[in-house]
Amino acid sequence: MALEVYWASGSPFSWRVLLTLEVKQLPYQSKLLTFSQREHKSPEYLALNPRGKVPTLKDGDFLLYESLAIMAYLDSAYPERPLFGRTPQEIGTIWRLVSENISYVCDPIGKVVGPLFFGSAAEKEAEIRAAATTVHAELAQLEAVVAKSLWLAGATISAADIVVFPWMQMLLRAAAKEAAKPLNLEFLPFDVRYPHLAAWVKRVEALPGYERTYPPHWR
Amino acid sequence: MALEVYWASGSPFSWRVLLTLEVKQLPYQSKLLTFSQREHKSPEYLALNPRGKVPTLKDGDFLLYESLAIMAYLDSAYPERPLFGRTPQEIGTIWRLVSENISYVCDPIGKVVGPLFFGSAAEKEAEIRAAATTVHAELAQLEAVVAKSLWLAGATISAADIVVFPWMQMLLRAAAKEAAKPLNLEFLPFDVRYPHLAAWVKRVEALPGYERTYPPHWR
Repeated sequence: MALEVYWASGSPFSWRVLLTLEVKQLPYQSKLLTFSQREHKSPEYLALNPRGKVPTLKDGDFLLYESLAIMAYLDSAYPERPLFGRTPQEIGTIWRLVSENISYVCDPIGKVVGPLFFGSAAEKEAEIRAAATTVHAELAQLEAVVAKSLWLAGATISAADIVVFPWMQMLLRAAAKEAAKPLNLEFLPFDVRYPHLAAWVKRVEALPGYERTYPPHWR
Repeated sequence: MALEVYWASGSPFSWRVLLTLEVKQLPYQSKLLTFSQREHKSPEYLALNPRGKVPTLKDGDFLLYESLAIMAYLDSAYPERPLFGRTPQEIGTIWRLVSENISYVCDPIGKVVGPLFFGSAAEKEAEIRAAATTVHAELAQLEAVVAKSLWLAGATISAADIVVFPWMQMLLRAAAKEAAKPLNLEFLPFDVRYPHLAAWVKRVEALPGYERTYPPHWR
């Protein structure tokens, strides 16, 4: 039975799982939910995921939600092309990078991106600037990492890349918005500001199957 | 060489790692830092953990920070008494419980606990009440889980229990404060409100080595 993935366009958590499936070359049935139609709050979907969040994975009879849990499950159930490392040190390093992204990076990126996506950049300028300073400090650290290796945790792609990537794309998309220009947040041109990270983004974009993971409503 | 753990009293993230070490019965050297003396921001400590956070683990030459990463590392490096499950389904379920705690429970518990610990309960009453409602909904779900099994992910203790427990103790400690009484948040008596969770707390407290993990400044 094919894996079934319930997801929504623009959800970085969904994007993680789609990238995981593509990188591990696992066939799956895509179940795209539409936020604006509140399909993630329908009784049918709430029966699969009582929190009404995306993504959710169905693997035969086994149901699972929470993106990191789905990633860990898939890596264990389908161990080819491991994404969480092969040695204890790799495992620790990958989870450190994942945890750092969640603890220190997602929230400030959200504070930059949210107002730019939802048209409140002018009134939230001070918050955006404060968050952008934090984001720059985190990007500088990541830039130093990918200056030394192709991927965040070494020579092969890992869960760390997959967790970090959707937030990076959200940031780049927001930074390119018209509303961002007067703020001059100094994220762009990205290949000038953060050349190694820009090359890393291109490496992810070149992965087979990447196009299938790209948020449809962004096109 | 013994494992070395740098930690601080009252940090739920530190507590996770100490519990992990005790449950896995791994000997370790305890390096207790004092927040009030800013030992976590000393140059010596920042050389181990550039974020100046606790905990940090040193295992021979291998340095690691971020509590979940340390837990995943220890479980891989010292596989006896596994805490992240034995089957893909167990692994997925444990990470789901861990992720749900981090995504939906820690923040509202923090909003209840913070003002009660730091003497701002009166002016933050509305926020405390709103957060307490969310916490009650989450506790009801956990109560239903431990009504059916001894531990959150089944018959044996797992990383899910270890991640959830310190926040539960923080909540119980805050709820017992004098400042909490006029708010009547309905967490206590815990064994009446949430009898299965109260029994689960007692099971954790009965673990060998538990006393070594208890925040010294709480005594």
